[in-house]
Amino acid sequence: MGMVGGGLGSFIGDVHRKAAGIDGMIELVCGAFSSTAEKSITSGKALGLDESRCYGNFEEMIQKEKELPEDVRMDFVAIVTPNYMHFPPAKMALEHGFHVVCDKPVTLTLDEAQALQKVVDKSGKLFALTHNYTGNSLVKQAKAMVAKGELGTIRKIQAQYLQGWLSTSLEKTEQKQAAWRVDPKRSGIGGALGDIGTHAENLIEYITGLRIKEIAADLGRFGEGRVLDDDGNMLIRMENGAKGTISISQIALGEENNLGIKVYGTKGSLEWHQENPNELITRWLEEPKKVYTPNGNNLYPEALAVSRIPAGHPEGYLEAFATIYKNFAMHLVAVNQGQNIEKPDYPTIEDGVRGMQFIYAAVESDKNNAAWTKLS
Amino acid sequence: MGMVGGGLGSFIGDVHRKAAGIDGMIELVCGAFSSTAEKSITSGKALGLDESRCYGNFEEMIQKEKELPEDVRMDFVAIVTPNYMHFPPAKMALEHGFHVVCDKPVTLTLDEAQALQKVVDKSGKLFALTHNYTGNSLVKQAKAMVAKGELGTIRKIQAQYLQGWLSTSLEKTEQKQAAWRVDPKRSGIGGALGDIGTHAENLIEYITGLRIKEIAADLGRFGEGRVLDDDGNMLIRMENGAKGTISISQIALGEENNLGIKVYGTKGSLEWHQENPNELITRWLEEPKKVYTPNGNNLYPEALAVSRIPAGHPEGYLEAFATIYKNFAMHLVAVNQGQNIEKPDYPTIEDGVRGMQFIYAAVESDKNNAAWTKLS
Amino acid sequence: MGMVGGGLGSFIGDVHRKAAGIDGMIELVCGAFSSTAEKSITSGKALGLDESRCYGNFEEMIQKEKELPEDVRMDFVAIVTPNYMHFPPAKMALEHGFHVVCDKPVTLTLDEAQALQKVVDKSGKLFALTHNYTGNSLVKQAKAMVAKGELGTIRKIQAQYLQGWLSTSLEKTEQKQAAWRVDPKRSGIGGALGDIGTHAENLIEYITGLRIKEIAADLGRFGEGRVLDDDGNMLIRMENGAKGTISISQIALGEENNLGIKVYGTKGSLEWHQENPNELITRWLEEPKKVYTPNGNNLYPEALAVSRIPAGHPEGYLEAFATIYKNFAMHLVAVNQGQNIEKPDYPTIEDGVRGMQFIYAAVESDKNNAAWTKLS
Amino acid sequence: MGMVGGGLGSFIGDVHRKAAGIDGMIELVCGAFSSTAEKSITSGKALGLDESRCYGNFEEMIQKEKELPEDVRMDFVAIVTPNYMHFPPAKMALEHGFHVVCDKPVTLTLDEAQALQKVVDKSGKLFALTHNYTGNSLVKQAKAMVAKGELGTIRKIQAQYLQGWLSTSLEKTEQKQAAWRVDPKRSGIGGALGDIGTHAENLIEYITGLRIKEIAADLGRFGEGRVLDDDGNMLIRMENGAKGTISISQIALGEENNLGIKVYGTKGSLEWHQENPNELITRWLEEPKKVYTPNGNNLYPEALAVSRIPAGHPEGYLEAFATIYKNFAMHLVAVNQGQNIEKPDYPTIEDGVRGMQFIYAAVESDKNNAAWTKLS
Repeated sequence: MGMVGGGLGSFIGDVHRKAAGIDGMIELVCGAFSSTAEKSITSGKALGLDESRCYGNFEEMIQKEKELPEDVRMDFVAIVTPNYMHFPPAKMALEHGFHVVCDKPVTLTLDEAQALQKVVDKSGKLFALTHNYTGNSLVKQAKAMVAKGELGTIRKIQAQYLQGWLSTSLEKTEQKQAAWRVDPKRSGIGGALGDIGTHAENLIEYITGLRIKEIAADLGRFGEGRVLDDDGNMLIRMENGAKGTISISQIALGEENNLGIKVYGTKGSLEWHQENPNELITRWLEEPKKVYTPNGNNLYPEALAVSRIPAGHPEGYLEAFATIYKNFAMHLVAVNQGQNIEKPDYPTIEDGVRGMQFIYAAVESDKNNAAWTKLS
Repeated sequence: MGMVGGGLGSFIGDVHRKAAGIDGMIELVCGAFSSTAEKSITSGKALGLDESRCYGNFEEMIQKEKELPEDVRMDFVAIVTPNYMHFPPAKMALEHGFHVVCDKPVTLTLDEAQALQKVVDKSGKLFALTHNYTGNSLVKQAKAMVAKGELGTIRKIQAQYLQGWLSTSLEKTEQKQAAWRVDPKRSGIGGALGDIGTHAENLIEYITGLRIKEIAADLGRFGEGRVLDDDGNMLIRMENGAKGTISISQIALGEENNLGIKVYGTKGSLEWHQENPNELITRWLEEPKKVYTPNGNNLYPEALAVSRIPAGHPEGYLEAFATIYKNFAMHLVAVNQGQNIEKPDYPTIEDGVRGMQFIYAAVESDKNNAAWTKLS
Repeated sequence: MGMVGGGLGSFIGDVHRKAAGIDGMIELVCGAFSSTAEKSITSGKALGLDESRCYGNFEEMIQKEKELPEDVRMDFVAIVTPNYMHFPPAKMALEHGFHVVCDKPVTLTLDEAQALQKVVDKSGKLFALTHNYTGNSLVKQAKAMVAKGELGTIRKIQAQYLQGWLSTSLEKTEQKQAAWRVDPKRSGIGGALGDIGTHAENLIEYITGLRIKEIAADLGRFGEGRVLDDDGNMLIRMENGAKGTISISQIALGEENNLGIKVYGTKGSLEWHQENPNELITRWLEEPKKVYTPNGNNLYPEALAVSRIPAGHPEGYLEAFATIYKNFAMHLVAVNQGQNIEKPDYPTIEDGVRGMQFIYAAVESDKNNAAWTKLS
Repeated sequence: MGMVGGGLGSFIGDVHRKAAGIDGMIELVCGAFSSTAEKSITSGKALGLDESRCYGNFEEMIQKEKELPEDVRMDFVAIVTPNYMHFPPAKMALEHGFHVVCDKPVTLTLDEAQALQKVVDKSGKLFALTHNYTGNSLVKQAKAMVAKGELGTIRKIQAQYLQGWLSTSLEKTEQKQAAWRVDPKRSGIGGALGDIGTHAENLIEYITGLRIKEIAADLGRFGEGRVLDDDGNMLIRMENGAKGTISISQIALGEENNLGIKVYGTKGSLEWHQENPNELITRWLEEPKKVYTPNGNNLYPEALAVSRIPAGHPEGYLEAFATIYKNFAMHLVAVNQGQNIEKPDYPTIEDGVRGMQFIYAAVESDKNNAAWTKLS
């Protein structure tokens, strides 16, 4: 694995490295960690890399690695930069024959996303998008329960992703995480929409197997001087007639990372919260509430497959994130060995395009005073 | 207290009686419990009333009681019938000099509500509406915290009232509770909107002290053949610029009586759920989450005033309901003694009109594909 | 109902009155509320009683009421005084033909309890002890599940009753509740043991249907100058070979009223906490955790019988307390009507004797450095 | 890192490897994974090791590695075998100049533990014991709060470690985990005592900074034919006069991995549960309950130091386990660089001896019908 971005002090770069490390399948071999060669070397050496493989920019990394012997060079590129810096390295890596793991949202603009989809298709290389929450054991259980019809027809969905860390004007301090997220040049047209809204959208479509048809979005820009949304309330209509809400915020003071979903069907319902990821609450017409746990009783194989430790030993954010990497790595190994296996379960460029459609529909709806707007 | 409706087998009539009984201030002395004199007598006698004060209809009750000596006759009328049967007895009782406690929504139509408001004003009599959830100790604590500025400026609100009991076509069975609730002639233009939506709306305005300015409502009619909403997803905008969502449902399978609210401000946030009413969760910029309990540490007098038992002894639905009756009774006693006291804290005809405005705005918005609609 | 004790400002007297009032079956008609006639009259009048039936002491009350016409005089006596004042009025009431409801622990000493048992037996009158927590719907569900063998053979039990209100030397302030509880003359040989320990003991035996055979108790007297226990840790062995612990405390700082129980069997397990009484958590060998709620799915008739309101409408401390009164009143009505019904489910003098045996065994064990001591 | 034990299919070996991998400081370079060279090679190669460093037994590994150049050979040995196979490799590794990380309980017998302590002292090498739960951020917060006097004097402690996986006779199936745990030859004189009881004991002493003075233990052997304890109920007395209970079980049906602790002081109290490790509940004399979260508001540096990700991103079992490895690795790096740093916070041989004293005291107490027995 070669990394683009993620120098010392980066939050998400460190997460990607830890997640990639848990299952012992992936090794960091090189990186273009920062905007200057010097900083990149400092970061790389601190990570135990040889200076020769700490590059000053992604172009250099891709070219130089390409020239290395096949068994030495990186297998894939992990892109952990701010949104505006996803498309260029992803495109170049794919076109130079490298597989890609990319953080979300997939690109700065919808156009870029659609262009990237073509690049991926043409390249024949693997592309994983780190919608990490879908890596949770109980999210996979939820998806399996819906797919097998246990909930009947889905009628109602509630999703939320609430944070409070931008309640104050954090971007006016030295906080780098805040600065780029409120900057349209680096984030794109969505603020909270891109940063967390796409996770909520992805989780809904992943679990229910249904597509959001249209949304009515009322976005807020509560922080002083902010031009991007830091809050959003949305109505949704699903392709099958189900209805629901999505509420997102980065000014929901005191909320830490409250992503949650409720899905109500004609036979059963389910509820999951990422801050307490080791519980899947289900409700039934004629039975008491049942609570599933990772590696606990009565799980589907899809859920059992991603638990690493026995029931009662909590798995968290990093483990779910690691599952994306693990499934990607398993696919990559199979492909490298010329095997023709069914693609393991991880998010791809299609999820990326879908996320951008969501951002664009929400922003357009908001401009039109929350008029219904289709995702497409 | 004389009761209109609430014969044997009635859910809400029994609740009113138990609630009125808890604090020992109110005695049931007469009733027009059912649509026939015979049934009314059966119910009344089972409740320990003398047959002479079990009336065949509310008109008879009001007239006959009026003729009794002042110290014998009922002090007030409690109206616990389906919505269409609120206005007539309320109007007549007030015009005959009786105070009134009425279930919600206050009337069948908005016109009736506004007409009733005039009747109340003209009569000079007391009128209480049983938005019972505002009787909870921690709801009063929440209101006090907002009022004293502890949360700063309110920015975001999420309210939900989710039930699942109409997930199936219960109205096609012998279930009386279901039958009238899905019938516009008896319920009005709102289904879930009137039955539970008004509780959510009332709770928002009660706790925040802010008015909902406009809503965008997407209603669902999922039950086969239903003409009234059994589900609704709404965006709201408050008069101060805060934004939020209300989600209500009676087809959220497995939900029992999940009324909850979250309020986010610039200094703090709070969260309360009626199914777990003895916890008020608060979040802060620079302090850990704090959880308040009834009669626990650091409560405002408003909250302490309505707890009946020491901390850790859970109070529930009936106790909160009883608080509405208790505060009404205290007011009535004061008025009867010619005292000029500040009105105790209970919902009134204004809350009733407000609730009808909410129902009407939601239905109109829904007709216009969830267009923003003002409450007025 | 005539009341002994429970004057203005009394906690438990007020609880008894509210609980007795909820179901509308019981009316307070007289009382000896305080130690002087004057105070008793003040309390009684505030409760709406006629001065003529506010007595200066229980002897007077019992004698005078006895002289009243049968349809006027009280049916039973409710004793809500400190422990030392249970036996005298209970004995006299029974011997004068009145039924009795008595607070726990049943008497000051084990000798008194055994003497009272003989009085009850001889009198043929009803005697109810307010082990109120057994009135909860889900406690009855728990008992039914064990009785029907759903849990298999019980192997392990954990019970706790933790409070923190005596963490400081509250008895040295004006707090009347604290003063008598730490005074052996008024409480007996048990402090926390009598006040809350007997509830834990009773709950264990009620739910499991098993008797505690022996205990090893290590009592604490942490409050400065206290001679009675304010804390206790105990090992227990049940008659069937099950083992477990009981932990009680009134110096567990910050705990409000944390009574809880876990029961583990060979087929299933259950867990219940009185501070969250509307959840019964059950665990199974091959199924996920199931959570029962009052009036929710899959309850036994025993549990359904004591819920007053639909699922999701929380019932609390008063409702459970009221169930003791309600079941007692139903029994009394049946007896008065000459019916020969099966005794409804409420605690009796046997539970009272059992509680005193528990206190005495624990104190003796503690004196012998926690040596195993039989309950008998 | 070279590993002893932990071949394919091992639970705890895999946990050690994942935990060691998270922070990217430790690399597995060799192992004696199984009882035969062939199996060891199979496991090692699956883990990406060169066959030349997959050894047939620990003696061979230690000797061969010792012969490798210093910059190639393993730095330390991780011992993840059943209890009886801790002492021999630990002793030999230390005596050959290797540092050691060892699973708990530290040895098969108390004698071995005390002997090993001498070996460690003499060797001057580092020795870490994986009492992994002390690696949790909020356990460190709890310890810091007690140490800084926030809770005042500790009066009462409740700890429990409840599992249900041995509810049935799992050892009679092919389950390898169960087989050695119920076998005194491989486990020692403690069953559940050694496997989980020592975690509870260690957590108590770690958080409170107090030593358990004596215990009274009533052990159960509920599984058919079991000679070692599979359940235990214990009274404890701390050196400072505090009292409490420890309850452990592997037959608490349905419990997954329920380790928890409550500590009550004269100023405040705390509560932590490993199945929900991202909440530390604290209670106070005059303030509402406060709930701390990893990387949340108001944490001490000790707690902040071990969180890897922002608040609201749950950390779990592996992360806490990884902290033991990380702190050990930091110490090792410092020592290798000749730095004289304060020992980072991880459990050592002293914790190991302490755990064996706990097991021995409990077993002796149980033999004497739960007589008080000192830990020494």
